[in-house]
Amino acid sequence: MAEQLRIGVIGAGRIGKIHAENIARFIPQARLEGIADIKLSAEQEAWAKALGARIISKDPGDMLKDPEIQGVIICSSTDTHADLTIAAAQAGKHIFCEKPVDLTPAKVQGALEAVKKAGVKLQIGFNRRFDHNFARIREHTLAGGIGQVHLVKITSRDPAPPPPAYVAVSGGIFLDMMIHDFDMARFQAGSEITEVYAAGAVLVDPEIGKAGDVDTALVTLKFANGAIGVIDNSRKAVYGYDQRVEVFGSKGAAVAENDLPNTVKLYSEAGVTGEKPLYFFLERYKQAFIDEMISFIAAVRDNKPAAVTGEDGLEDMYAALAAGKSLKEKRPVAISEVRN
Amino acid sequence: MAEQLRIGVIGAGRIGKIHAENIARFIPQARLEGIADIKLSAEQEAWAKALGARIISKDPGDMLKDPEIQGVIICSSTDTHADLTIAAAQAGKHIFCEKPVDLTPAKVQGALEAVKKAGVKLQIGFNRRFDHNFARIREHTLAGGIGQVHLVKITSRDPAPPPPAYVAVSGGIFLDMMIHDFDMARFQAGSEITEVYAAGAVLVDPEIGKAGDVDTALVTLKFANGAIGVIDNSRKAVYGYDQRVEVFGSKGAAVAENDLPNTVKLYSEAGVTGEKPLYFFLERYKQAFIDEMISFIAAVRDNKPAAVTGEDGLEDMYAALAAGKSLKEKRPVAISEVRN
Amino acid sequence: MAEQLRIGVIGAGRIGKIHAENIARFIPQARLEGIADIKLSAEQEAWAKALGARIISKDPGDMLKDPEIQGVIICSSTDTHADLTIAAAQAGKHIFCEKPVDLTPAKVQGALEAVKKAGVKLQIGFNRRFDHNFARIREHTLAGGIGQVHLVKITSRDPAPPPPAYVAVSGGIFLDMMIHDFDMARFQAGSEITEVYAAGAVLVDPEIGKAGDVDTALVTLKFANGAIGVIDNSRKAVYGYDQRVEVFGSKGAAVAENDLPNTVKLYSEAGVTGEKPLYFFLERYKQAFIDEMISFIAAVRDNKPAAVTGEDGLEDMYAALAAGKSLKEKRPVAISEVRN
Amino acid sequence: MAEQLRIGVIGAGRIGKIHAENIARFIPQARLEGIADIKLSAEQEAWAKALGARIISKDPGDMLKDPEIQGVIICSSTDTHADLTIAAAQAGKHIFCEKPVDLTPAKVQGALEAVKKAGVKLQIGFNRRFDHNFARIREHTLAGGIGQVHLVKITSRDPAPPPPAYVAVSGGIFLDMMIHDFDMARFQAGSEITEVYAAGAVLVDPEIGKAGDVDTALVTLKFANGAIGVIDNSRKAVYGYDQRVEVFGSKGAAVAENDLPNTVKLYSEAGVTGEKPLYFFLERYKQAFIDEMISFIAAVRDNKPAAVTGEDGLEDMYAALAAGKSLKEKRPVAISEVRN
Repeated sequence: MAEQLRIGVIGAGRIGKIHAENIARFIPQARLEGIADIKLSAEQEAWAKALGARIISKDPGDMLKDPEIQGVIICSSTDTHADLTIAAAQAGKHIFCEKPVDLTPAKVQGALEAVKKAGVKLQIGFNRRFDHNFARIREHTLAGGIGQVHLVKITSRDPAPPPPAYVAVSGGIFLDMMIHDFDMARFQAGSEITEVYAAGAVLVDPEIGKAGDVDTALVTLKFANGAIGVIDNSRKAVYGYDQRVEVFGSKGAAVAENDLPNTVKLYSEAGVTGEKPLYFFLERYKQAFIDEMISFIAAVRDNKPAAVTGEDGLEDMYAALAAGKSLKEKRPVAISEVRN
Repeated sequence: MAEQLRIGVIGAGRIGKIHAENIARFIPQARLEGIADIKLSAEQEAWAKALGARIISKDPGDMLKDPEIQGVIICSSTDTHADLTIAAAQAGKHIFCEKPVDLTPAKVQGALEAVKKAGVKLQIGFNRRFDHNFARIREHTLAGGIGQVHLVKITSRDPAPPPPAYVAVSGGIFLDMMIHDFDMARFQAGSEITEVYAAGAVLVDPEIGKAGDVDTALVTLKFANGAIGVIDNSRKAVYGYDQRVEVFGSKGAAVAENDLPNTVKLYSEAGVTGEKPLYFFLERYKQAFIDEMISFIAAVRDNKPAAVTGEDGLEDMYAALAAGKSLKEKRPVAISEVRN
Repeated sequence: MAEQLRIGVIGAGRIGKIHAENIARFIPQARLEGIADIKLSAEQEAWAKALGARIISKDPGDMLKDPEIQGVIICSSTDTHADLTIAAAQAGKHIFCEKPVDLTPAKVQGALEAVKKAGVKLQIGFNRRFDHNFARIREHTLAGGIGQVHLVKITSRDPAPPPPAYVAVSGGIFLDMMIHDFDMARFQAGSEITEVYAAGAVLVDPEIGKAGDVDTALVTLKFANGAIGVIDNSRKAVYGYDQRVEVFGSKGAAVAENDLPNTVKLYSEAGVTGEKPLYFFLERYKQAFIDEMISFIAAVRDNKPAAVTGEDGLEDMYAALAAGKSLKEKRPVAISEVRN
Repeated sequence: MAEQLRIGVIGAGRIGKIHAENIARFIPQARLEGIADIKLSAEQEAWAKALGARIISKDPGDMLKDPEIQGVIICSSTDTHADLTIAAAQAGKHIFCEKPVDLTPAKVQGALEAVKKAGVKLQIGFNRRFDHNFARIREHTLAGGIGQVHLVKITSRDPAPPPPAYVAVSGGIFLDMMIHDFDMARFQAGSEITEVYAAGAVLVDPEIGKAGDVDTALVTLKFANGAIGVIDNSRKAVYGYDQRVEVFGSKGAAVAENDLPNTVKLYSEAGVTGEKPLYFFLERYKQAFIDEMISFIAAVRDNKPAAVTGEDGLEDMYAALAAGKSLKEKRPVAISEVRN
């Protein structure tokens, strides 16, 4: 077996735990060297120990100082992403950073410059590109099965809204939720978004409206290659996590349906009933979280470009900002308006 | 058996033939009394005779003068619809008129006034409301299975574009093709469209662009009840007629897939292959053409409102006109802007 | 239009009505000349008149005597099929006879001899061969998509059992119900059945057991070409008429699922629910009843072999008799044991 | 976290590797203490070391002697299963034994007696009971969704046949391949098999026939509770591993389709193409291998009966032996004939 990439994880919240456990258990190409969390609890410490982490710390800097650690996974709170990225780059560590890098373009740009200067790899955590369904659609497109892309349609609905308090600090539906779909849209179209038009409404929970956000949104996209797209988001699909993508083009269409926990259908007098989609992102994107990390490790080891770059993260963010502006100003907004 | 409604068909083109044959063969509740076409060919005459029509004529007026005929089906060229509707109303005939009644709101309004004054029934040929799939979705909504409607999504793609010459006189993609989907959207939302935003592109055939139209379009809808909608149209889906509808709401979603010619799947080394959707509207909406007529006949006989009224046709047209204006002016357009 | 085949229908029960109406309305290649039923009611007479029948009679002989009538459709009670077939053949009429021709091989053989001698066409009413799904499987096989056939699997379950009184006179599950599946098996295998083994049980209704029959049966088939098959029947599937066929071979498999009334699925907290299969044979095989008749008419007009011959009917019957014997004697039974 | 069950693996072939890796990586409830293989290669040794095994040996006895090891997983060659089971039982180790325990009932019975005497747990590796699809069907049955079970239908086809040399020593299709399906049938029926009738043929590879086996088989089952079943096996389904189960009863049916690698369908002029089933058992039953082990560990820790007992393995074997006898003697064979 080739040597393992030595990794430190910064932030031991929900997503940090997933990455740490994936590396410790499911990704033999890497070794979990350390875990840092500024609010590390006793429970988290025990968990980190059980995973075999050599360094367990409340100081993220410990991950950057350690000479053995080659790469860090930044899963701390969003407001720390940019600074940690800069510090990690300066320390010569390769970086896997959860999305978004920041909520303001200027800070993201600063981080990207630091990464460029340091010559380290940076991959952003847009895990859905690694989903077996959506990756397969892209394969079909690249293999010519769809021809020239005309339309990209994305449905992305959560099973339940986050608490209104979270909504207020999250940056809103476009920066927090639809940003995944902007990234998917760009990935599937193979082209940059040039303009967006956002329609939104508060239909799920009035508290979300009071927090200044919408909970239902539909955004039209125009791409540089002439294709058109549409994304619909809802904060609440009572039947579970609804994640579907469709790409339509001159030679056909590829359509991905939801993943189900099993294929069983029950035929009864009442009808024919099957399973609801997998409940939420932990279930649905379980393997995608592993596969994005394997991809990051391979990019570092083979010195290839990351599959999802910092520039991708920045473009996704521009789309989200433009969508917010469009919703507010009730008109289509060109990405160029928010880029500068 | 109750007495049959006596019907005259005006216009013996493709759609006129369908209606005439449906009445003669599949709809025992009605009797085909006459067929008129201003360019009646010998072949059409023979066909009309074989169907048992009593009056076969080149003069549509013969249908209106005949005292036996109770209702007429107007399937002549679009530019004659409004005048024939007015004349039929004045002659006291109930009217089933193919869509659109006219391409200008003023003429449609004039026709609707004449109908109102005469007290006859008027049904517009938006056959898709009678499709088994789409009607079932509406049933689910009315039964409460979807809860409050949040999103209406319509995919409507033709297998092949019409000749560019036709495109030029048809009124364009919104008035000719998407008007069916505006009607479907209003039907499924149970609410009027208040605003549209249209994105369009020429991706299928540059000749369509030269004729001043687009061949690919995606239109965002806002409804009076707060719901949001989206329609996507393409003039060319190489895999056949793609007709899908999805309604999403507070309690769930209802999704209609395409109809297929059979359920067989072939499992081979190359993959698992099933059938393409039914080719085009004649195949897909075969039963819907019959069912809309049965509905019209029942409305006349039971003196109930038509299932698709002249006002529906007018509203659908406003949406189409607003979409055209939106595409041209690159901004969302309120229906109120085109209504007056 | 070519001249229409002039047809008389004998027997105006459920299936006779379907054939008569299909010819009168949906099959322009034929003309309904007459309808005879030995117990013709006033209601049946009115119905026959409305369909435009020239001869309406209580004497089936009137169909045979009429010089205009070219073919007869025998839909009377099973015990009259053989004699009417013989009489019709002697009268020079082509014959479409509902299955079974008789419940005893000797009578069937006599009828087939009369048909052969007279040189008329005889088609047996095994309508399922014309079903869009099952015909498509056979097409795949003939096109080489399945390779050499290894397995034929047929599921055939009724939504509700017939009255026990009917069960007693019907010949039992094998002759009354599974005979359709034996025919389908031979059709799909492209080979004769050589041996059967029947397992059966009374699980639906003890009254059926008291009538000397089983209501649940599973029969293993061996074909002359080496393939193996299995048919399962139940008299009661609470979710509706379950009609599926699968053919597996050296190059793949073709699988036909049930037909549904629509494609809509309802996503809710309770699961994802779709429609039950079409209720029963009238709904499911509506078009197959038309298509078998069109096939019969074409065979007569083009002087080609019928798609389902009298010999097919006889072979199907042998399989049914062998299955009955197998169930009784609890051992596999060769067709040759019942053939002579 | 509760204490981990300390496990030794005997046999480091394909299936032994899976179990060892699953325990080391994916099953925190257990710890991999040792790995023994009588032909342990240098590569296997390195692999065992990488997994963190404390004892790595060529002597299975080392797993039994070690006082720390609480349970053993027997994955050695079939002819050693019974003796190792006896030795492990006598050493007081809980036992997970791959199927079959042996090819002769007497040896199996001897092993079961030793297990009983020692009071240790014994679970047999019928992993398919833990498959998400098949377990879900059983849940539906137990929840009453299917009512009384009338029919159990199992399709089980391998993507490619084993080498004929293997076929000769494997015990044949019934003991080697269909034994899984006999176990599934008993599991789904909730009842013992009382009689089988086997039809078989050599359709895939004549070499298999020369080795004295069949490659295509269809077996009818009768259950003690009155239900009927059927299993079809083929050694070669060119489209991949075909694993489906259907249970039909008085209140409905539950049907499990194959698992696919993704849900994407490609719509093109050529048709609509989806993925083939997951290739073979390693892919399809990946999670089931983990879940059966978790179940075994829980049975030991909670001192509950194993989910698949030695008696299950014995009953499955009787069914396989009866099927072989049935095929040879061309008659239905009662299980009681082979039991004594």
